[in-house]
Amino acid sequence: MSGEVITAVYEISSEDPAGRAAQVAVEQSHELPTELAPGNAVRDSLARVRSVLRRPGLAALATVDYPADLAGAELGQLLVLLLGNVSLQDGVRLVDVTLPARLAAALPGPRLGIAGVRALVGEPGRALLATALKPVGMTPQQLAGLAYEIAAGGLHILKEDQGLANQPWAPFAERVPRVAEAVRRANQDTGGRSIYLPCVNGPAAGFPGQVRLARQAGAHGVMVLPGIAGFGALARAAEVFPGGMVLAHPSFLGGFTASPGHGIAPDVLFGTLLRLAGADATIFPGFGGRFSLSREQCLAIAEAARRPLHDIAPALPAPGGGMSIDRAPELLDAYGPDTIFLIGADLQRGGNPRRAAERLLAATR
Amino acid sequence: MSGEVITAVYEISSEDPAGRAAQVAVEQSHELPTELAPGNAVRDSLARVRSVLRRPGLAALATVDYPADLAGAELGQLLVLLLGNVSLQDGVRLVDVTLPARLAAALPGPRLGIAGVRALVGEPGRALLATALKPVGMTPQQLAGLAYEIAAGGLHILKEDQGLANQPWAPFAERVPRVAEAVRRANQDTGGRSIYLPCVNGPAAGFPGQVRLARQAGAHGVMVLPGIAGFGALARAAEVFPGGMVLAHPSFLGGFTASPGHGIAPDVLFGTLLRLAGADATIFPGFGGRFSLSREQCLAIAEAARRPLHDIAPALPAPGGGMSIDRAPELLDAYGPDTIFLIGADLQRGGNPRRAAERLLAATR
Repeated sequence: MSGEVITAVYEISSEDPAGRAAQVAVEQSHELPTELAPGNAVRDSLARVRSVLRRPGLAALATVDYPADLAGAELGQLLVLLLGNVSLQDGVRLVDVTLPARLAAALPGPRLGIAGVRALVGEPGRALLATALKPVGMTPQQLAGLAYEIAAGGLHILKEDQGLANQPWAPFAERVPRVAEAVRRANQDTGGRSIYLPCVNGPAAGFPGQVRLARQAGAHGVMVLPGIAGFGALARAAEVFPGGMVLAHPSFLGGFTASPGHGIAPDVLFGTLLRLAGADATIFPGFGGRFSLSREQCLAIAEAARRPLHDIAPALPAPGGGMSIDRAPELLDAYGPDTIFLIGADLQRGGNPRRAAERLLAATR
Repeated sequence: MSGEVITAVYEISSEDPAGRAAQVAVEQSHELPTELAPGNAVRDSLARVRSVLRRPGLAALATVDYPADLAGAELGQLLVLLLGNVSLQDGVRLVDVTLPARLAAALPGPRLGIAGVRALVGEPGRALLATALKPVGMTPQQLAGLAYEIAAGGLHILKEDQGLANQPWAPFAERVPRVAEAVRRANQDTGGRSIYLPCVNGPAAGFPGQVRLARQAGAHGVMVLPGIAGFGALARAAEVFPGGMVLAHPSFLGGFTASPGHGIAPDVLFGTLLRLAGADATIFPGFGGRFSLSREQCLAIAEAARRPLHDIAPALPAPGGGMSIDRAPELLDAYGPDTIFLIGADLQRGGNPRRAAERLLAATR
């Protein structure tokens, strides 16, 4: 037994935060009244409250130490102990996590990280721009045509919309090779280095095969939906696609962050946890768009994705929505250049995505 | 293109529910302003608001029709379109889903269902009782000893606690054969039919191997955590373990249900969606315990798990927490016999789990 601990900080909204914190520590480790547990389990595997800080007018802050062996050196079990059952209760929000170095080293983490993604797109320092190929319902020809224009305009990353799966209008196995070919042709025609990330969201049994197909077709990585495919799908994609970029999409993860007194702080979920799970870049709803995170929350996500964390590579924050030529100075200033800015509809507005990509690139230089 | 639709009903909290419903329909299908979408996509793949019902003092009810092909006959994509991005926004809660028969037939659904689980445990009609082997930190010998006693007492289902993974105290590959052997021995000694479901929550690459190991060791199925391992993990487990029971645990899924105006109604998530994903039984926090669902919500989950739904087999609701000899009449009356009642600490209180199991079985007959 290592004696090391995983430390979690929770915001607790309760009349009796110390009592509630003690319940959380038991619920998340033993899930059994301590008087019923064998002595060796009480000694080895019971979480303990380190401190509870009452804050007038705010939720209390409770710090809980978990014996590090509880995670079994696995990401999935780390999630179980940090918030598994407590996610079902009100008034408890996970706001910080600290891991021992040995556990961090055992978790997947980003394979490429910021440096690897920059090498893939051939851009050592500037802000990166990405867009989503959409809408679902377009044919492979239409999607390939759109991809060609955007790649020819020099946009760094073309990911598929999370709405694209294996629908009859553009089945995965037909669509992915066509779009990859269009991006390759645009790169050849312009000397560019745009990369293409298909969305992989099929059944679990077919997931590795879809990632392999993407690789063989000439894509440069994949987008994965951990809220649906599971947190382990990020590392699985990296294993099956060596050298490929793994982009995390937040679909179906909003349940955790939308309610202030409950769930997980967005920087912990979209920053720390998805980075530990293996995301090279993590999409989240950017402030000022049509979603509900604040500027402060968004910058905390970016910080959590990039800050030093043992030997885990930093990941790129990818705020979605709201980037435009008008907002470029503000957003660049807020997030800094180690960021992927997702451009949505603005790229298609005006009917000339190539020219729009060129103008956006110029505005964010 | 089929012309069939998937119909979703959302509770919408907004000054302008009709406008918000229209945004949801676009966000969840095209995620692009309609004036920018090609004509064929607008015709084929754009969701449409069917109706918006204002209710004084309550959230409005918006009914949205999605072209059924948007799901691409896949569960993961069905989840994307029902709530993917909207999960990140406030004020929208998914409260009902209706699928066309053809789509339902393409989704996994329970392999065993209620009849199959009843056949496995040899109990054609009565309420089923289950418990969790815990706490984490116990050795394989201790867990096997506890399992023997509980199985000898005749409890129908012994599942592992979601806290058990691959920790040093009882590694998966060592623990599962020992506990399976203990349950087998108890069944031989007493003529019983207790079944054992290990918890499988390892990395994605190792998931099928863990399920296979469980099968080879003589377990009778597995427990899966779809909130962490992904919704597809339920069907994957059923594929790898033919004839094995698949039990869904709600760890890390509470984000969706804990906030009233947001996320997914518990009956849709724990009942309908996990059943469609392949759960033979679905654990949820029962009313009157230490979690926060109401009696009405719990009974709605049970109803959603069991009600007729095209050709999809019914699943067993498995309310967790709160079952005791005292509460048995009330809970049996509320849920009815097609239920798995999870007994927690009460079974271990008093130091004689075998006798406690026998008394609980008698009290729930």
